[in-house]
Amino acid sequence: MNKKFEEKTISTEPIYNGRIIKVQKDLVTLPNGKTASRELVKHPGAVGIIPITAGGKLIVVEQYRKALERSLIEIPAGKLEPGEKPATTAIRELEEETGMGANQFDYLQTIATSPGFANEEIHLFIARDLYKIAQPASLDEDEFVELMEIDLEEAEAMIANGAISDAKTVIAVMWMRLNIQSIKK
Amino acid sequence: MNKKFEEKTISTEPIYNGRIIKVQKDLVTLPNGKTASRELVKHPGAVGIIPITAGGKLIVVEQYRKALERSLIEIPAGKLEPGEKPATTAIRELEEETGMGANQFDYLQTIATSPGFANEEIHLFIARDLYKIAQPASLDEDEFVELMEIDLEEAEAMIANGAISDAKTVIAVMWMRLNIQSIKK
Repeated sequence: MNKKFEEKTISTEPIYNGRIIKVQKDLVTLPNGKTASRELVKHPGAVGIIPITAGGKLIVVEQYRKALERSLIEIPAGKLEPGEKPATTAIRELEEETGMGANQFDYLQTIATSPGFANEEIHLFIARDLYKIAQPASLDEDEFVELMEIDLEEAEAMIANGAISDAKTVIAVMWMRLNIQSIKK
Repeated sequence: MNKKFEEKTISTEPIYNGRIIKVQKDLVTLPNGKTASRELVKHPGAVGIIPITAGGKLIVVEQYRKALERSLIEIPAGKLEPGEKPATTAIRELEEETGMGANQFDYLQTIATSPGFANEEIHLFIARDLYKIAQPASLDEDEFVELMEIDLEEAEAMIANGAISDAKTVIAVMWMRLNIQSIKK
Protein backbone atom coordinates (compact mmCIF):
# COMPACT_ATOMS: atom_id res chain seq x y z
CA MET A 1 0.00 0.00 0.00
CA ASN A 2 1.27 3.41 -0.97
CA LYS A 3 2.23 5.38 2.16
CA LYS A 4 3.99 8.39 0.58
CA PHE A 5 3.76 11.51 2.77
CA GLU A 6 2.23 9.33 5.49
CA GLU A 7 0.49 11.15 8.32
CA LYS A 8 1.04 9.18 11.50
CA THR A 9 -1.72 9.18 14.08
CA ILE A 10 -0.88 10.82 17.39
CA SER A 11 -4.36 10.49 18.87
CA THR A 12 -7.94 9.79 17.81
CA GLU A 13 -10.92 11.60 19.28
CA PRO A 14 -14.16 9.64 18.66
CA ILE A 15 -16.96 12.07 17.83
CA TYR A 16 -19.92 10.02 16.65
CA ASN A 17 -20.72 6.36 16.39
CA GLY A 18 -23.80 6.19 14.17
CA ARG A 19 -25.79 3.42 12.59
CA ILE A 20 -23.98 3.91 9.26
CA ILE A 21 -21.10 6.34 9.73
CA LYS A 22 -18.50 6.94 12.42
CA VAL A 23 -16.87 10.34 12.79
CA GLN A 24 -13.52 10.98 14.44
CA LYS A 25 -10.89 13.68 14.66
CA ASP A 26 -7.30 12.52 14.39
CA LEU A 27 -4.26 14.47 15.43
CA VAL A 28 -1.44 13.56 13.03
CA THR A 29 2.26 14.12 12.48
CA LEU A 30 2.93 15.60 9.03
CA PRO A 31 5.94 14.70 6.86
CA ASN A 32 7.67 17.92 8.05
CA GLY A 33 7.24 16.95 11.71
CA LYS A 34 4.46 19.45 12.42
CA THR A 35 1.06 18.37 13.65
CA ALA A 36 -2.36 18.84 12.08
CA SER A 37 -5.90 17.64 12.72
CA ARG A 38 -8.00 15.57 10.33
CA GLU A 39 -11.79 15.25 10.45
CA LEU A 40 -12.64 11.79 9.23
CA VAL A 41 -15.82 9.93 8.32
CA LYS A 42 -15.65 6.14 8.43
CA HIS A 43 -18.11 4.31 6.20
CA PRO A 44 -18.54 0.54 5.67
CA GLY A 45 -18.07 0.81 1.88
CA ALA A 46 -20.58 0.06 -0.82
CA VAL A 47 -21.21 -1.50 -4.18
CA GLY A 48 -22.63 -0.01 -7.35
CA ILE A 49 -24.14 -2.19 -10.04
CA ILE A 50 -24.26 -1.27 -13.74
CA PRO A 51 -27.22 -3.37 -14.98
CA ILE A 52 -27.38 -3.49 -18.76
CA THR A 53 -30.43 -4.91 -20.50
CA ALA A 54 -30.38 -7.11 -23.59
CA GLY A 55 -31.28 -3.99 -25.59
CA GLY A 56 -28.24 -2.13 -24.24
CA LYS A 57 -30.16 0.08 -21.82
CA LEU A 58 -28.95 1.05 -18.36
CA ILE A 59 -31.25 0.41 -15.39
CA VAL A 60 -31.15 3.28 -12.90
CA VAL A 61 -33.09 4.17 -9.78
CA GLU A 62 -34.38 7.52 -8.69
CA GLN A 63 -34.36 8.15 -4.95
CA TYR A 64 -34.40 11.02 -2.49
CA ARG A 65 -31.02 11.86 -1.00
CA LYS A 66 -31.52 13.72 2.24
CA ALA A 67 -27.90 14.91 2.36
CA LEU A 68 -28.45 16.87 -0.87
CA GLU A 69 -32.17 17.61 -0.23
CA ARG A 70 -33.12 16.39 -3.70
CA SER A 71 -33.68 13.16 -5.58
CA LEU A 72 -30.93 11.70 -7.70
CA ILE A 73 -30.84 9.24 -10.55
CA GLU A 74 -28.22 6.60 -9.81
CA ILE A 75 -27.17 3.11 -10.68
CA PRO A 76 -28.40 0.58 -8.07
CA ALA A 77 -26.10 0.62 -5.06
CA GLY A 78 -25.92 -0.30 -1.42
CA LYS A 79 -23.74 -0.58 1.63
CA LEU A 80 -21.68 -3.61 2.54
CA GLU A 81 -22.97 -5.52 5.55
CA PRO A 82 -20.26 -6.43 8.11
CA GLY A 83 -18.06 -9.18 6.68
CA GLU A 84 -19.96 -9.33 3.41
CA LYS A 85 -18.06 -9.80 0.16
CA PRO A 86 -18.76 -7.02 -2.37
CA ALA A 87 -19.92 -9.53 -5.00
CA THR A 88 -22.55 -10.81 -2.55
CA THR A 89 -23.72 -7.29 -1.75
CA ALA A 90 -23.98 -6.55 -5.46
CA ILE A 91 -26.23 -9.55 -6.13
CA ARG A 92 -28.41 -8.68 -3.13
CA GLU A 93 -28.74 -4.98 -3.95
CA LEU A 94 -29.53 -5.64 -7.61
CA GLU A 95 -32.34 -7.95 -6.50
CA GLU A 96 -33.69 -5.58 -3.84
CA GLU A 97 -33.62 -2.46 -5.98
CA THR A 98 -34.61 -3.87 -9.38
CA GLY A 99 -36.14 -7.32 -8.75
CA MET A 100 -33.55 -8.70 -11.18
CA GLY A 101 -30.83 -11.28 -11.18
CA ALA A 102 -27.91 -11.44 -13.61
CA ASN A 103 -26.35 -14.48 -15.26
CA GLN A 104 -23.22 -12.43 -15.88
CA PHE A 105 -21.68 -10.38 -13.07
CA ASP A 106 -18.28 -8.81 -13.77
CA TYR A 107 -16.20 -6.79 -11.34
CA LEU A 108 -15.17 -3.51 -12.97
CA GLN A 109 -13.19 -1.44 -10.48
CA THR A 110 -13.23 0.16 -7.03
CA ILE A 111 -13.53 3.91 -6.62
CA ALA A 112 -12.77 6.16 -3.66
CA THR A 113 -15.56 8.72 -3.61
CA SER A 114 -14.53 11.44 -1.14
CA PRO A 115 -10.93 10.77 -0.08
CA GLY A 116 -10.53 14.25 1.45
CA PHE A 117 -12.73 13.37 4.42
CA ALA A 118 -14.26 9.89 4.05
CA ASN A 119 -12.98 6.35 3.52
CA GLU A 120 -15.97 5.24 1.45
CA GLU A 121 -15.00 3.01 -1.45
CA ILE A 122 -17.52 1.71 -3.96
CA HIS A 123 -16.94 -1.57 -5.76
CA LEU A 124 -18.46 -1.42 -9.24
CA PHE A 125 -19.89 -4.43 -11.04
CA ILE A 126 -21.38 -4.87 -14.50
CA ALA A 127 -24.55 -7.00 -14.51
CA ARG A 128 -25.61 -8.49 -17.84
CA ASP A 129 -27.91 -11.24 -19.09
CA LEU A 130 -30.55 -10.07 -16.62
CA TYR A 131 -33.67 -12.00 -15.62
CA LYS A 132 -36.68 -11.18 -13.49
CA ILE A 133 -36.79 -12.83 -10.06
CA ALA A 134 -40.26 -14.20 -9.27
CA GLN A 135 -40.36 -13.18 -5.59
CA PRO A 136 -37.48 -10.77 -5.11
CA ALA A 137 -36.22 -9.66 -1.69
CA SER A 138 -37.66 -6.25 -0.95
CA LEU A 139 -36.05 -2.93 -0.17
CA ASP A 140 -35.26 -1.80 3.34
CA GLU A 141 -38.39 -0.29 4.82
CA ASP A 142 -37.00 3.23 4.66
CA GLU A 143 -36.05 3.03 0.95
CA PHE A 144 -38.24 4.35 -1.85
CA VAL A 145 -36.93 4.10 -5.38
CA GLU A 146 -38.35 4.32 -8.86
CA LEU A 147 -36.83 2.22 -11.62
CA MET A 148 -36.00 3.54 -15.07
CA GLU A 149 -34.38 2.06 -18.16
CA ILE A 150 -32.46 4.61 -20.18
CA ASP A 151 -30.48 4.21 -23.35
CA LEU A 152 -26.92 5.41 -23.62
CA GLU A 153 -27.65 8.55 -25.63
CA GLU A 154 -30.36 9.54 -23.15
CA ALA A 155 -27.99 8.92 -20.22
CA GLU A 156 -25.31 11.09 -21.81
CA ALA A 157 -27.83 13.87 -22.40
CA MET A 158 -28.87 13.61 -18.73
CA ILE A 159 -25.25 14.04 -17.65
CA ALA A 160 -24.88 17.03 -19.95
CA ASN A 161 -28.01 18.73 -18.57
CA GLY A 162 -27.30 17.83 -14.93
CA ALA A 163 -30.17 15.36 -14.48
CA ILE A 164 -27.49 12.76 -13.69
CA SER A 165 -24.72 14.00 -11.39
CA ASP A 166 -23.92 11.03 -9.18
CA ALA A 167 -20.22 10.18 -9.67
CA LYS A 168 -20.57 6.38 -9.85
CA THR A 169 -23.39 6.77 -12.39
CA VAL A 170 -21.32 9.16 -14.53
CA ILE A 171 -18.55 6.52 -14.53
CA ALA A 172 -21.12 3.85 -15.48
CA VAL A 173 -22.34 5.84 -18.47
CA MET A 174 -18.81 6.69 -19.64
CA TRP A 175 -17.87 3.01 -19.29
CA MET A 176 -20.82 2.08 -21.52
CA ARG A 177 -19.74 4.57 -24.18
CA LEU A 178 -16.17 3.28 -24.08
CA ASN A 179 -17.39 -0.33 -24.28
CA ILE A 180 -20.27 0.13 -26.66
CA GLN A 181 -19.39 -3.04 -28.57
CA SER A 182 -19.90 -5.15 -25.46
CA ILE A 183 -23.27 -3.78 -24.41
CA LYS A 184 -25.32 -4.33 -27.55
CA LYS A 185 -26.01 -7.81 -28.82
CA MET B 1 -35.16 20.82 -8.20
CA ASN B 2 -36.33 17.22 -8.22
CA LYS B 3 -38.11 16.40 -4.93
CA LYS B 4 -39.56 12.98 -5.75
CA PHE B 5 -40.01 10.83 -2.63
CA GLU B 6 -39.07 13.86 -0.55
CA GLU B 7 -38.14 13.19 3.07
CA LYS B 8 -39.37 16.11 5.14
CA THR B 9 -37.31 17.11 8.16
CA ILE B 10 -39.00 16.67 11.53
CA SER B 11 -35.95 17.64 13.58
CA THR B 12 -32.21 18.09 13.24
CA GLU B 13 -29.74 17.03 15.91
CA PRO B 14 -26.38 18.80 15.46
CA ILE B 15 -23.56 16.36 16.21
CA TYR B 16 -20.32 18.01 15.17
CA ASN B 17 -19.32 21.39 13.86
CA GLY B 18 -15.80 20.90 12.54
CA ARG B 19 -13.37 23.04 10.62
CA ILE B 20 -14.34 21.38 7.33
CA ILE B 21 -17.36 19.14 7.91
CA LYS B 22 -20.54 19.38 9.92
CA VAL B 23 -22.36 16.26 11.03
CA GLN B 24 -26.03 16.08 11.94
CA LYS B 25 -28.75 13.50 12.46
CA ASP B 26 -32.12 14.33 10.93
CA LEU B 27 -35.41 12.73 11.81
CA VAL B 28 -37.51 12.63 8.63
CA THR B 29 -41.00 11.75 7.44
CA LEU B 30 -40.87 9.16 4.66
CA PRO B 31 -43.22 9.12 1.63
CA ASN B 32 -45.32 6.42 3.40
CA GLY B 33 -45.75 8.61 6.50
CA LYS B 34 -43.35 6.63 8.68
CA THR B 35 -40.29 8.21 10.24
CA ALA B 36 -36.63 7.39 9.81
CA SER B 37 -33.29 8.89 10.83
CA ARG B 38 -30.60 10.10 8.46
CA GLU B 39 -26.94 10.60 9.38
CA LEU B 40 -25.66 13.49 7.28
CA VAL B 41 -22.28 15.06 6.58
CA LYS B 42 -22.31 18.64 5.33
CA HIS B 43 -19.31 19.69 3.26
CA PRO B 44 -18.60 23.05 1.58
CA GLY B 45 -18.16 21.49 -1.86
CA ALA B 46 -15.04 21.37 -3.97
CA VAL B 47 -13.53 21.70 -7.40
CA GLY B 48 -11.46 19.27 -9.42
CA ILE B 49 -9.25 20.46 -12.26
CA ILE B 50 -8.27 18.35 -15.26
CA PRO B 51 -5.02 20.02 -16.39
CA ILE B 52 -3.95 18.84 -19.82
CA THR B 53 -0.50 19.70 -21.16
CA ALA B 54 0.29 20.70 -24.73
CA GLY B 55 1.51 17.15 -25.25
CA GLY B 56 -1.84 15.73 -24.13
CA LYS B 57 -0.68 14.56 -20.71
CA LEU B 58 -2.72 14.79 -17.52
CA ILE B 59 -1.18 16.51 -14.50
CA VAL B 60 -2.00 14.67 -11.28
CA VAL B 61 -0.91 14.98 -7.67
CA GLU B 62 -0.06 12.26 -5.21
CA GLN B 63 -1.00 12.96 -1.61
CA TYR B 64 -1.69 11.11 1.62
CA ARG B 65 -5.36 10.70 2.45
CA LYS B 66 -5.76 10.09 6.15
CA ALA B 67 -9.35 8.86 5.79
CA LEU B 68 -8.12 5.94 3.67
CA GLU B 69 -4.71 5.61 5.39
CA ARG B 70 -2.89 5.61 2.06
CA SER B 71 -1.75 8.02 -0.61
CA LEU B 72 -3.84 8.54 -3.70
CA ILE B 73 -3.12 9.87 -7.17
CA GLU B 74 -5.73 12.49 -8.04
CA ILE B 75 -6.37 15.44 -10.28
CA PRO B 76 -5.71 18.75 -8.48
CA ALA B 77 -8.67 19.64 -6.27
CA GLY B 78 -9.68 21.72 -3.32
CA LYS B 79 -12.54 22.94 -1.19
CA LEU B 80 -14.62 26.02 -1.90
CA GLU B 81 -14.02 28.90 0.49
CA PRO B 82 -17.22 30.51 1.83
CA GLY B 83 -18.88 32.51 -0.93
CA GLU B 84 -16.23 31.61 -3.50
CA LYS B 85 -17.27 30.86 -7.06
CA PRO B 86 -16.11 27.41 -8.23
CA ALA B 87 -14.25 28.91 -11.20
CA THR B 88 -12.23 31.07 -8.78
CA THR B 89 -11.43 28.07 -6.58
CA ALA B 90 -10.33 26.12 -9.63
CA ILE B 91 -7.84 28.81 -10.72
CA ARG B 92 -6.51 29.10 -7.16
CA GLU B 93 -6.13 25.38 -6.57
CA LEU B 94 -4.46 24.78 -9.92
CA GLU B 95 -1.90 27.44 -9.04
CA GLU B 96 -1.34 26.19 -5.48
CA GLU B 97 -1.02 22.53 -6.36
CA THR B 98 0.82 22.73 -9.69
CA GLY B 99 2.28 26.24 -9.94
CA MET B 100 0.43 26.59 -13.24
CA GLY B 101 -2.10 28.90 -14.79
CA ALA B 102 -4.33 28.09 -17.75
CA ASN B 103 -5.31 30.30 -20.66
CA GLN B 104 -8.28 28.03 -21.28
CA PHE B 105 -10.55 26.99 -18.41
CA ASP B 106 -13.75 25.15 -19.32
CA TYR B 107 -16.44 23.98 -16.93
CA LEU B 108 -17.17 20.31 -17.52
CA GLN B 109 -19.79 19.13 -15.03
CA THR B 110 -20.65 18.84 -11.34
CA ILE B 111 -20.62 15.47 -9.61
CA ALA B 112 -22.18 14.34 -6.33
CA THR B 113 -19.60 12.08 -4.72
CA SER B 114 -21.31 10.33 -1.80
CA PRO B 115 -25.02 11.17 -1.93
CA GLY B 116 -25.92 8.42 0.54
CA PHE B 117 -24.48 10.35 3.47
CA ALA B 118 -22.76 13.56 2.30
CA ASN B 119 -23.72 16.64 0.31
CA GLU B 120 -20.27 17.10 -1.23
CA GLU B 121 -20.41 18.15 -4.86
CA ILE B 122 -17.31 18.60 -6.99
CA HIS B 123 -17.30 21.04 -9.89
CA LEU B 124 -14.98 19.77 -12.62
CA PHE B 125 -13.02 22.05 -14.95
CA ILE B 126 -10.73 21.34 -17.87
CA ALA B 127 -7.56 23.47 -17.86
CA ARG B 128 -5.67 23.76 -21.14
CA ASP B 129 -3.02 26.01 -22.65
CA LEU B 130 -1.09 25.88 -19.38
CA TYR B 131 1.75 28.18 -18.39
CA LYS B 132 4.13 28.25 -15.44
CA ILE B 133 3.49 30.98 -12.87
CA ALA B 134 6.72 32.69 -11.78
CA GLN B 135 5.87 33.03 -8.07
CA PRO B 136 2.86 30.80 -7.50
CA ALA B 137 0.76 30.86 -4.33
CA SER B 138 1.82 27.99 -2.13
CA LEU B 139 -0.05 25.07 -0.66
CA ASP B 140 -1.74 25.16 2.71
CA GLU B 141 0.87 24.41 5.33
CA ASP B 142 -0.58 20.97 6.07
CA GLU B 143 -0.58 19.86 2.41
CA PHE B 144 2.14 17.76 0.83
CA VAL B 145 1.74 16.74 -2.77
CA GLU B 146 3.95 15.39 -5.52
CA LEU B 147 3.22 16.34 -9.11
CA MET B 148 3.21 13.88 -11.99
CA GLU B 149 2.44 14.12 -15.68
CA ILE B 150 0.97 10.96 -17.11
CA ASP B 151 -0.17 10.16 -20.59
CA LEU B 152 -3.61 8.80 -21.28
CA GLU B 153 -2.56 5.19 -21.86
CA GLU B 154 -0.58 5.23 -18.61
CA ALA B 155 -3.53 6.72 -16.74
CA GLU B 156 -5.85 4.02 -18.09
CA ALA B 157 -3.39 1.33 -17.05
CA MET B 158 -3.25 2.87 -13.56
CA ILE B 159 -7.04 2.70 -13.30
CA ALA B 160 -6.98 -0.92 -14.45
CA ASN B 161 -4.36 -1.91 -11.85
CA GLY B 162 -5.89 0.15 -9.03
CA ALA B 163 -3.10 2.76 -8.79
CA ILE B 164 -5.77 5.35 -9.61
CA SER B 165 -9.07 4.86 -7.77
CA ASP B 166 -10.25 8.37 -6.97
CA ALA B 167 -13.68 8.83 -8.60
CA LYS B 168 -13.12 12.34 -10.00
CA THR B 169 -9.80 11.23 -11.48
CA VAL B 170 -11.40 8.18 -13.09
CA ILE B 171 -13.95 10.53 -14.66
CA ALA B 172 -11.14 12.82 -15.84
CA VAL B 173 -9.31 9.98 -17.57
CA MET B 174 -12.48 8.61 -19.17
CA TRP B 175 -13.30 12.15 -20.37
CA MET B 176 -9.87 12.38 -22.00
CA ARG B 177 -10.38 9.09 -23.82
CA LEU B 178 -13.83 10.18 -25.03
CA ASN B 179 -12.43 13.54 -26.17
CA ILE B 180 -9.09 12.42 -27.48
CA GLN B 181 -9.35 14.69 -30.50
CA SER B 182 -9.53 17.76 -28.29
CA ILE B 183 -6.55 16.98 -26.04
CA LYS B 184 -3.78 16.51 -28.60
CA LYS B 185 -2.66 19.35 -30.78
